[in-house]
Amino acid sequence: MTYCVAAALEDGLVFASDSRTNAGVDHINTYCKMHAFCWEGERVFVLLSAGNLATTQAVTHRLTRDLDQPDAPMNLRKARDMHEAADYVGEVSAQTQKRQESLAGASANFSATFILGGQIGRADPDLLLIYPEGNYIHYSPERPFLQVGETKYGKPVLDRLITWDLSLPAAARCILVSLDGTMRSNLTVGPPIDLLVYTRNSLTIQRRLRYKANSSTLSSLRKHWNEGLKKAFLDLPPFDWEKTG
Amino acid sequence: MTYCVAAALEDGLVFASDSRTNAGVDHINTYCKMHAFCWEGERVFVLLSAGNLATTQAVTHRLTRDLDQPDAPMNLRKARDMHEAADYVGEVSAQTQKRQESLAGASANFSATFILGGQIGRADPDLLLIYPEGNYIHYSPERPFLQVGETKYGKPVLDRLITWDLSLPAAARCILVSLDGTMRSNLTVGPPIDLLVYTRNSLTIQRRLRYKANSSTLSSLRKHWNEGLKKAFLDLPPFDWEKTG
Repeated sequence: MTYCVAAALEDGLVFASDSRTNAGVDHINTYCKMHAFCWEGERVFVLLSAGNLATTQAVTHRLTRDLDQPDAPMNLRKARDMHEAADYVGEVSAQTQKRQESLAGASANFSATFILGGQIGRADPDLLLIYPEGNYIHYSPERPFLQVGETKYGKPVLDRLITWDLSLPAAARCILVSLDGTMRSNLTVGPPIDLLVYTRNSLTIQRRLRYKANSSTLSSLRKHWNEGLKKAFLDLPPFDWEKTG
Repeated sequence: MTYCVAAALEDGLVFASDSRTNAGVDHINTYCKMHAFCWEGERVFVLLSAGNLATTQAVTHRLTRDLDQPDAPMNLRKARDMHEAADYVGEVSAQTQKRQESLAGASANFSATFILGGQIGRADPDLLLIYPEGNYIHYSPERPFLQVGETKYGKPVLDRLITWDLSLPAAARCILVSLDGTMRSNLTVGPPIDLLVYTRNSLTIQRRLRYKANSSTLSSLRKHWNEGLKKAFLDLPPFDWEKTG
């Protein structure tokens, strides 16, 4: 399994992904699911991937290869806006899945889902979720985050805390808490955690970090969150029937 | 969908369930998923149900009907221990599902899952999860809660807070928070919430409550929890890269 999450905020974008892949419980591996493409001062893309690993690797390989081919009808460098970029990634993904299915029959699940975020020139940053079918949706300002993979465990904390006006580091903390809770509840989501914080209009990637299982940042965050949560829990009001005994 | 959760604690058992049922988004209804059977001073059972509503209703009907038949080979009154009770409920459930399938073919999903908790005489209270296949597992003291239905959203808070030595009202608060977060994240889980708190060795049901959507207890709990969570969030330690600017 996988858990990737990204948020779109007034000040920019925050992306995070776990690194665990599994094909059965005795076939666990570690792969980075975050792929960044950057032409400084011009455009930045960050792609988070969930689903069949062979598919997602083939897709990112194809995206990279298309960049080297000046006569490719489309690539990430040529896309005029984030829509065109998402259309292109969606097409590559759908084609890749079809190819795998034509080789193997419909017996296996080759599907993949992506989060694509970034900024092209002076246009606003954007954040999209690309379905296995190749179509996609934008984030909404009322609920400015997108998730793929094992999304449920980590959603309540995002629902309660992520808002459009949150600062980038605050959103990054919230996202790490969401990932940490998911890792705790589901063994198929695991470290290292990749975190990328993109500042609006910077058109460069300044802040990309990788947190291993024993990272002091992650341990400190987990410790403070557990303590804060426990305090919130102890401060909950008593039931009426407790007061009366 | 459904969300039911129960905890086994040093002082007793806590049960909670939502009340929303749905067969498609335009067929939403409200049913109680908590069924209590009590013979004061002798034995207490609480059953929480998730899955196909026709199946769970047929099962609880059969459990009730068997009680009136003195020559029934087994019923909740005759069970010598919680194992025997769980075997019996599991058998009734598996038989009921088989009957529905034999009528309709394998096209629909008639499966149901139950949480059964209670106490018989002076034996320790017990809490079990009964699978659609009719087999079952006990809670474990290291993780003294069981969930059925839409379990993922509400699990992280239980993972972090529920321990064997928690008081009954504290566990009840934690379980309500878990239910509230699930209702917020998933529309197919909804109020009223049924809560039952069973005190070890009481062999009676003293505390059974129903919280509607506009319940002041629920609103107050939600408000305090949101505030506490926000505070925990604001108190998280800053990243190294924030301090250095």
